[in-house]
Amino acid sequence: MRAAVAGRYVSPHEVTAAWSSGSSDRTVRVVVDAMGGDNAPDEVVKGALQAAGERVRVVLVGDEARVGRLLPPDARHVELVHAPDVITFHDEPVAAARRKTASSLVMGMKLVHEGQADAFVSAGNTGAVVAASLLYVHRIHGVHRPAICSIMPAAPTPLAMLDIGANAECRPEHLRQFAVMGQAFAREVMGIAEPEVGLLSIGEEETKGTGAVIEAHKLMAGDPRVRFRGNVEGRDIMDRAVDVVVTDGFTGNVALKTIEGTAKAVMKAVRQAIDANLSTKLGGALLRAELYRVRDALDPEEYGGAFLVGMKAPVIIAHGSSRARGIANAVRQAARGVVSDLLPSIARELGAGSPEGGDTAS
Amino acid sequence: MRAAVAGRYVSPHEVTAAWSSGSSDRTVRVVVDAMGGDNAPDEVVKGALQAAGERVRVVLVGDEARVGRLLPPDARHVELVHAPDVITFHDEPVAAARRKTASSLVMGMKLVHEGQADAFVSAGNTGAVVAASLLYVHRIHGVHRPAICSIMPAAPTPLAMLDIGANAECRPEHLRQFAVMGQAFAREVMGIAEPEVGLLSIGEEETKGTGAVIEAHKLMAGDPRVRFRGNVEGRDIMDRAVDVVVTDGFTGNVALKTIEGTAKAVMKAVRQAIDANLSTKLGGALLRAELYRVRDALDPEEYGGAFLVGMKAPVIIAHGSSRARGIANAVRQAARGVVSDLLPSIARELGAGSPEGGDTAS
Repeated sequence: MRAAVAGRYVSPHEVTAAWSSGSSDRTVRVVVDAMGGDNAPDEVVKGALQAAGERVRVVLVGDEARVGRLLPPDARHVELVHAPDVITFHDEPVAAARRKTASSLVMGMKLVHEGQADAFVSAGNTGAVVAASLLYVHRIHGVHRPAICSIMPAAPTPLAMLDIGANAECRPEHLRQFAVMGQAFAREVMGIAEPEVGLLSIGEEETKGTGAVIEAHKLMAGDPRVRFRGNVEGRDIMDRAVDVVVTDGFTGNVALKTIEGTAKAVMKAVRQAIDANLSTKLGGALLRAELYRVRDALDPEEYGGAFLVGMKAPVIIAHGSSRARGIANAVRQAARGVVSDLLPSIARELGAGSPEGGDTAS
Repeated sequence: MRAAVAGRYVSPHEVTAAWSSGSSDRTVRVVVDAMGGDNAPDEVVKGALQAAGERVRVVLVGDEARVGRLLPPDARHVELVHAPDVITFHDEPVAAARRKTASSLVMGMKLVHEGQADAFVSAGNTGAVVAASLLYVHRIHGVHRPAICSIMPAAPTPLAMLDIGANAECRPEHLRQFAVMGQAFAREVMGIAEPEVGLLSIGEEETKGTGAVIEAHKLMAGDPRVRFRGNVEGRDIMDRAVDVVVTDGFTGNVALKTIEGTAKAVMKAVRQAIDANLSTKLGGALLRAELYRVRDALDPEEYGGAFLVGMKAPVIIAHGSSRARGIANAVRQAARGVVSDLLPSIARELGAGSPEGGDTAS
């Protein structure tokens, strides 16, 4: 079997290396929505070119003229599929996913649906990516709701948190499924052996939280598939109390953005401290290289993107502001999603049989 | 009238000064639960002594022998009321508030109820403080639910966020009332003129969020009392996009603890960067004083505690881990709550008449 590299976190950078030396030798094809994101198509194409190689072929979907211009004449392992339309951040997600069938986003999804590609990456409209995934890629049989699973920076290694925005409101049973899917993601994609799960709440006691959280606690505690460590609190996320944090998409999205905003604000305060006077400026110069490492470790681009778990193919939602590095890491993460045991694992645990036997989207 | 110092944030340190030079000349009596908190009674008593003065009399409630020992023989402006029992962090909040009538927490609340003191401070069991407040201090007439309002560190000045934990689940109407109370708090206690309110959600658009949040958005947008700036996201809290962030007690508690945890994790990473080698250690030494300022600005003790708004008297819930400085600032904040126009303002806007005419607790 395609086993995870047990016991330690595997970054997207390492994926090609780990995989070449491993048991899988297949080539994967990853669709990249060339028109999605604040820095599309330039940075998206640049990132796609960085990640493309012998094992990872990239299919860029987007405006032929605009994207073609960005490709070097000798570009290898990359092909371009023309899509005349674009879904923007201003489009209403569900309507756009249904109607803009000539958009790069929908055309890319269809390539995955038709088996012409194995995975999908976009830095575009998150809601539209989720809606189009449900319409064209479909859920794994037995999965009630897909969830967006994010790799969160934490010391000494990152952890997984889901859902960070696909479902604003969740029933307890959804949260239990997120636990199972998050565990599979941490194990198969992040390389964490025997990942432990915490439920985000407002106190350690099982009686704390909303009605849905209290009920989800019971379901998770009673589910032998879930390695459940009980409730965790906001401060436990960055403190790395567990490997997988489960929450609804509203709370998870607020927590994710709060972490990003707080990390940015604190680093800004540190920069201002350095700028205070000549002596602090000298101090800052001596610390520069190390502080860059701190900044980089907190950078979401390091992890590429968030993974929409529960679908029949890996769908990666990169940060809207992704630059080339973020896109390249998102492509690597998508590739790892394909060659790992993630999808079969979710299908085994939540459904009946393989990920191919799924039901249609709601 | 007792006007706020308009246009700038007033820290708890400044409260006595601002107030002596202002129009109010009354003396306030603040009850301090001497037995509440991780560092009770030692640090609590120390903090109470720091804050006590001509204008702020402190009534320490707790074990006579243990607390009495900590008071200097010539202690002025401080008195001690014996309470034989204690509510701990392990007690079930509502049951303890009802049954442990000889606890420092409940006896202190009763002193406020009986008019023997004007405000209440505890670093103890938050749930028990909220439950006891409802039982003994009572809500202001017209207030559906009290909310815990926290002063959050942000640059250049702090902002208010509520509810951070009194109500795990909130109806839209509750959130609207929180907006009105949060505005009054920012104006009267924090000294922010014309505070602006944001509703915490997962996107700027009014269609984003849970059903309750979408409905609350409509209520707040249509309420002439609320200076509403629309939805804000997690990253906007520390970015200081608005003066008051409104949310339910579950999301607010997660966001607050996530901010604390993230700030701590980032400062730890910076410390580790400083420890990397001799050159970075020198850099750190040059930066030390400025980095302490950053750390202090992020320290919740700077702000003393969270304010339970909507009650007939100021009730301050200090951080469980508060040391003397945190307790002293909590007492100062309580005093400001008494002399400011906060309570009359909430009563005027949400009820009919003065805070004295309130209904009983539910």
